[in-house]
Order: sequence, then structure tokens, then C-alpha cells
Amino acid sequence: MSELNIVLENTLKKLLEERKYLSIKDVLSTMNPSDIAAILDEVSQQQLPKIFRLLPKELAAETFVEMDSDSQELLIQSFSDSELKLVIDELYVDDAVDIVEEMPANVVRRILEQAAPDMRKDINQILRYPEDSAGSVMTTEYVSLSSNYNVGQAIEHIRRTGYDRETIYTCYVTENRKLIGTVSVKDLLLAKDDSIKILSLTQTNFISVNTNTDQEEVARIFARYNLLALPVVDSEGLIVGIITVDDAMDVMEEETTEDIELMGGMMPSDKTYMKSSPIDIFRHRIPWLMILMVSATFTGLIIAGFEDALSRMVVLTAFIPMLMDTGGNSGSQSSVTIIRALSLGEVEFNDLPKIITKELATALLCATVLSVLCFIKIMLVDRLLIGNTDITAQVALLVCITMAATIIVAKLIGCSLPVIAKKIGFDPAVMASPFITTIVDALSLLIYFSITKAILL
Amino acid sequence: MSELNIVLENTLKKLLEERKYLSIKDVLSTMNPSDIAAILDEVSQQQLPKIFRLLPKELAAETFVEMDSDSQELLIQSFSDSELKLVIDELYVDDAVDIVEEMPANVVRRILEQAAPDMRKDINQILRYPEDSAGSVMTTEYVSLSSNYNVGQAIEHIRRTGYDRETIYTCYVTENRKLIGTVSVKDLLLAKDDSIKILSLTQTNFISVNTNTDQEEVARIFARYNLLALPVVDSEGLIVGIITVDDAMDVMEEETTEDIELMGGMMPSDKTYMKSSPIDIFRHRIPWLMILMVSATFTGLIIAGFEDALSRMVVLTAFIPMLMDTGGNSGSQSSVTIIRALSLGEVEFNDLPKIITKELATALLCATVLSVLCFIKIMLVDRLLIGNTDITAQVALLVCITMAATIIVAKLIGCSLPVIAKKIGFDPAVMASPFITTIVDALSLLIYFSITKAILL
Repeated sequence: MSELNIVLENTLKKLLEERKYLSIKDVLSTMNPSDIAAILDEVSQQQLPKIFRLLPKELAAETFVEMDSDSQELLIQSFSDSELKLVIDELYVDDAVDIVEEMPANVVRRILEQAAPDMRKDINQILRYPEDSAGSVMTTEYVSLSSNYNVGQAIEHIRRTGYDRETIYTCYVTENRKLIGTVSVKDLLLAKDDSIKILSLTQTNFISVNTNTDQEEVARIFARYNLLALPVVDSEGLIVGIITVDDAMDVMEEETTEDIELMGGMMPSDKTYMKSSPIDIFRHRIPWLMILMVSATFTGLIIAGFEDALSRMVVLTAFIPMLMDTGGNSGSQSSVTIIRALSLGEVEFNDLPKIITKELATALLCATVLSVLCFIKIMLVDRLLIGNTDITAQVALLVCITMAATIIVAKLIGCSLPVIAKKIGFDPAVMASPFITTIVDALSLLIYFSITKAILL
Repeated sequence: MSELNIVLENTLKKLLEERKYLSIKDVLSTMNPSDIAAILDEVSQQQLPKIFRLLPKELAAETFVEMDSDSQELLIQSFSDSELKLVIDELYVDDAVDIVEEMPANVVRRILEQAAPDMRKDINQILRYPEDSAGSVMTTEYVSLSSNYNVGQAIEHIRRTGYDRETIYTCYVTENRKLIGTVSVKDLLLAKDDSIKILSLTQTNFISVNTNTDQEEVARIFARYNLLALPVVDSEGLIVGIITVDDAMDVMEEETTEDIELMGGMMPSDKTYMKSSPIDIFRHRIPWLMILMVSATFTGLIIAGFEDALSRMVVLTAFIPMLMDTGGNSGSQSSVTIIRALSLGEVEFNDLPKIITKELATALLCATVLSVLCFIKIMLVDRLLIGNTDITAQVALLVCITMAATIIVAKLIGCSLPVIAKKIGFDPAVMASPFITTIVDALSLLIYFSITKAILL
């Protein structure tokens, strides 16, 4: 929240204490729904319904949509049936669906009872689509124009029916509900003559998605084609809804957060951080920590199997963290890059040979530079400066060869695993740092000890 | 690129080989600018200008904007002055600026020479704003309406001047260039009567940004307030431009990619992965690898300082990878979560006490569960199953206490560093996994060896 809003929040808190409801109403009426919602999410359970009732009808509905689901539930519980009906009537269908999805069964029943029959039908239909599909995020409130309209008729139609449509700026030209193209209000307004047939302005080369299209794909299409709205069609090409750019932005943000959480070794969470309790956070973090801890058993076994040699040359132990970290960092650089490129739709499975070539070349460069630097560092700092005479040129060479080999293996694994994961239907983001690190740790130790055996022992 | 486009690309390749230019033109004309650009970015240097010249004028300009800067430069070099002028005349100012920013000086000079005087002035003005500021991404092509218009006059004005405006859907109501509010085309079209004064439809409670506002903040505002366009004002409140939602989406994508690259231990890159050469990739990855390798010297020193004890109890070495990994993972979970929350504007410096409390509680839960699990695992797997009799209950306890302490320290460092980094003006994303891992590695070893000294020796 911006600093201005913090000031406002304090103002409101004081006004509330002094019960100056009229002033509160005036202050809130100057604000944006998102900002009001952010403030309402913070007030006490007793005050929430009181303040909400101060809002003018339309602003109340817009604010309601932006609030978090706990506050929404609280409000609905406190609403009379007629108050609930007032709010629901002002909602867009897709917003109503979002709310319904978060509510317990008894609240859902009340909402559906109070919704107008048309809206109830639409809500129920959208609820039937799979989670995270285009069908589940679309709205059924779009402007559809008959293909035999002229510009004047189209504008007239928009003026008559547009008031409860989520966007009027892209209109959908249909013949018997089959989508044949889109026409923008800009083209209609800028048309020279009202008698021009809209068919001549219609973009028939439009982009649409199916109700089953994944919402991540939807967000990508918006970013790629700079759209304001995207039509959703069923298997027969009949238009069933549209997705607007504001919802696409939300999806984009949500999907990116999910990717980042997975890459950080956590299960994705629906709640925002500040709204999550430590128990919530714990539940999302402990699974990966447990898996990674148990899988570190292998690294332990590798070291244990080499205990004899290590006890004779303890100096080798000192380089284990550096080798493991460099391997882990090299691998996660590659995996994170590829996971992002996959998310943006920039690379796909067919690009794997190109990716591997690119990463191999990069790995060779990194390996050469780092191992030369590492050799110099070991000889200058560890041997000369710190004066550890156990560290011979042979030991330094051994460490550097291991480092080079580890970097190459780490980068190859780091770039391939996400691509392969996606191909077999897993989320590539799972194949990020924590996972790669564990694999690379074990491999770097195996390489280290094998080379040591070959050279030193 | 979707599979359909790969098919299309193959078709075009064949048509090109057979020099069937008329068919190529027909095929391209059915396609979207973004898709044509993706295909043109792949064709050879000789073919590029040939194919580009086949495109109809407007489509050519729209495609040009979507191409990568190497291809744009190549095309400009091959254009005659009049061809260049044709393309530039069709560009929006913000797109022209994007292109100019990527070109070498001689190309920039040619572009500015061919641009119309008004556009040249606008390009030069936008170029003066700092990189990544709202001023540098805005366009100067918006619809501004005089505050004393009525609805009919406003619509008439839009119809007359809207053709080269980037968006007409939000219009800006001004008095002597001072922005006093916004009015949407939806409200104008749905107004009951043409004689209604637009002032009565004007939203005076609008959101605007300053020319210096950071573009990341701009993207956040779009996501928060569901806007289609955002006005940019100067220090006196005069409107100087607007930013449209498609550009905000690009910024959002760009900033997220930058965050993810930093979190993965890389320097952010302007080029896409597939367009980057191994040398490019190497340059962006090697700095962090070097820094982290050198800083791993400390971990080495800690181990070296403990060499005597380790040579007497080599079994302790076997747990080093697990302790380091668990610490690293715990810390990166916290840092990644907080970095994302900072990016989304969900938390800020003032929330630090709340964050630390939350993370401490979470850390205690994770530490308890993991160390109990770890104790059981060590005793069952490592001692009983594998039969390593060096591993006593005392050793297992030692490892588990270290693990618990490491998790708590890691989570506290992981959550605080990004917040502090942001406060003192660094990018918090730098404080992610690789950085945290290196710090936590050293700390976990220090804890391990101190506890060992206290208990075992």
C-alpha cells in the first residue's frame, strides 16, 4: 500500500473512533475500489459491515470484488437477503464466480438464491469448467453484433445493451452464435459513414481460445498479441464468453508467483504472504525440505564410502562446499533460465538439441575461466597466503578438474530436466534450484572422489 | 511458437524456395504481426527485405515493431529513404522510441531524418527520460478532450482525431493541458443524451504517475487498478503522455524475467535466450559464479580450521552436504517468498517486524519436524540399515541440533536481507538463493563445529 494510503488509513481509524460516519462516507467515495478493499481487509470484524454499508451501491460492489475471501464471507454472513441481492446484481459474472469458488457451501447457496436467474445459470455453467481453464476465468458478458448490422445499427446496439458488459471495446460479430470475427469500437467510431456494413470492418483473422485452454496459455496469448479481450469458443466455434485483459494480468501474476514458489522449493499457495499463518507457510514449505533432506542421504553415503581416503587427506574436505556450491549455482542458472523461457513460450521440446548445444558451449567457457581462476586462488590464497602446505599443485589441479567437470554436468542437467519435465506433463518449475542442487551435489562428490582415486591414490 | 506456426513456417520456406511471392503475400496477409515477425526473425538476411516488401503498408509497420532489433536494423539498412519514411509514418511514437533506443547512431540519424517533425520532437522528448521511467515507456498519442465539451462534441472529436491515437477508450479531460480527469468511451457512448456535459461523466478521482515513476511501479498500478491506460503527468500536473495496458504487460514480463534471472544468480539480459550467443550467456553468468566461488573460500577456511577434529571423526563429514543443503533450501524459501512479495508491492520495510515474527514461527515448526525426522532417519537408515557404527545417538543429536539452529538462522537471514536490500536501494532479487546459500553454508558449518566442540570434544 502506498504511503498516502497509510495516512488515509490512519485518518479513517480516527474518524471511526469518533463515529463520524458521514465524513467516512465522503472520504471513501473519493477512493478507488482496490484501495478501499485494502483498508476494509484490515478493519475489525465489527466495523467491517458498518463501513461497507456506507458505500454507494456501485462502489460497494466494485469494492466487494477486490476484498479478500475472508472479509467477503464475513460481509455476506452479515448481509440481509436484500442487501446481498443488491451487491450480486452489480457484479460481473466472472467476479461472482471467483467469489463463489472461495465460499463455503451455505454461503454459495445464499448467493445463488439471490442471483437473477440468468446470472445463476451463467455462474453454474462457468463453475463446470475445469480449474485454471479459459472457461473458468471467462465472463459471459460481452457485446455480440449480428453480421448484417451496419455501423449505425452496431453503435445503437452497443449504446442500448452495453451498460452491463465487461468490455464494449471489442465486439464479437456472430452468425447464429458462431463467431466469425471481431470489430473494435474504435473502427466503428472512426468509420466514415453510419451505413457501412460492419462486415467490411470485421477482423476475421482473430485469435480465440477453447474453453479448455490452460489459463497460462491465455496470459501468454494476451502478452504476445497485445489484446484487450480474447473470445472463448466451444468445440463447434460458438462463442461462449470472453476473457478481458485485467483478468489476464491477474492470471499472469498468479502463474508467475506459482512458478517462483516452485522454483524456491515450495508448494504454491493461494493466499498472499501477509494473509498466511505460520502454519500455512509451514505446510507449503515442509514437503520439499523433507524430500531434499532425505535425498541428501545419498551425498552422505558417497562421503561415507570414501571415509578412509578422506581421513588420510582431510585437506580434500575443505573444498567440498566450494565444489558443491559452484555446481549447484551453475545448474540453477541453467534451469532457471530454461524454466522462464518455457513459461514465456519461448522454447519448447523441439528446441532441446539447440538448448543443449548452447548450454554446452556456455558451460565450457564458464568451466575454463572458473577452473583457471580457482587454480590461481588455491595456490595464492590457500597455499601461499594462508600457508596450508597440504595443498599441493596436484591437489589444486584435482579440485579444478572436478570443478570443470561439475559445471559441465550441472549445466547439462539444469537445462534438460525442465524441458523433459514439461514434455512428460510435470511443471518444469519443480526442476529448479533445490532439486538440481541435490542431484548436482551427489554428482560433484562422485566426480571429485573418482578423480581423486585415479590421480592421488 | 505454436505448432501451427511451425507448419506455416515450413510452408513459407517451400514457397520461398519456389519463389512464389504472390502466394507468400497472400499467406502472410492472413497472419498476425507477432507471428509474421517471429517467422521473419528466422529467415536469412537476403530473404528478409524481399519478404518484408510483400507486406501491405499497415501490416508491414505493425510487423516491424514486433521484430527483434537485429532484424529491424538489417531492414532499415536495406530500406530506401522513402521506404523508411513509409514505415515510420505508420509507427506509434512509443514503438518508434523503442526501436531508436536499440539502433546504432547512424541508423538513429536516418530514422529521425525521415520522421515527421512532430514525431521527431516527441521521440526526442521521450528519449530524454531516464531508462525504465514512466516517461520512457509512455506514448504521446492520446485523445484529450476540452472540459467544456458535451458528449456529442466529444464523440465528434474522437471520430475526427482518433485514427492515430494508441487508445481512444480512455480520453483525458484537460483545462489548459492540466489533467482534470478521465472519461471512458463507454460512458460517452452509453450517455443518454448528446448534450450532456462531459464534465458530469468525468472521473476526477483518477490515478496518474509522474514521468519519473519507475516502470515496475507502473506495472503494479495496472495490475492493482485494472486499468486500460494510465496518464503520465509532469511536476505541474500537465499531461505529457499515457501508458497503455499492452506496454504495461510487457514491462511486467520484463521485470519478472529480470527478477528471476537475478534470483538464479545471473545478471539480467535484454536478449531472449534463443537469440543469445553462448558468449552473451557466459558474460551474464560468470560474475556471480566467480563471486560465489571466491566467497566459498570462507567455508573452506572454516573446515580447514577444524581439520584436526575432522580427521579424528570423519563420520561428521558425511553430514556436511545435508546440513548445508537444508540450510540453503530453508533460506532460499524465505528469501524467494519475500522477494516476490516485495515485487508485487505486498510487503514493504515497515512490515519487517511482522515478517520476522512470521518467519521465526515457521522456522520453529520446520526445525522441530525436520530435526525429529532427521534423528529417526540417521538412527534407522545410517546406523541400523547401513550399519555405520561410528554414528552414535550423540552424533545424531549433534547433527539434529545443528540442523534446527541452521534452519532458524537461514530463515531469518533469508527473510530480512531482501527487505533491507530494498531499503538501502539495492534490487532485493540479488538476495536470493545463491547469495543466501553462501552465507548460510558458512554459518551452518560454524554452528556444526561449535556445537561439536562443545558436546563431543
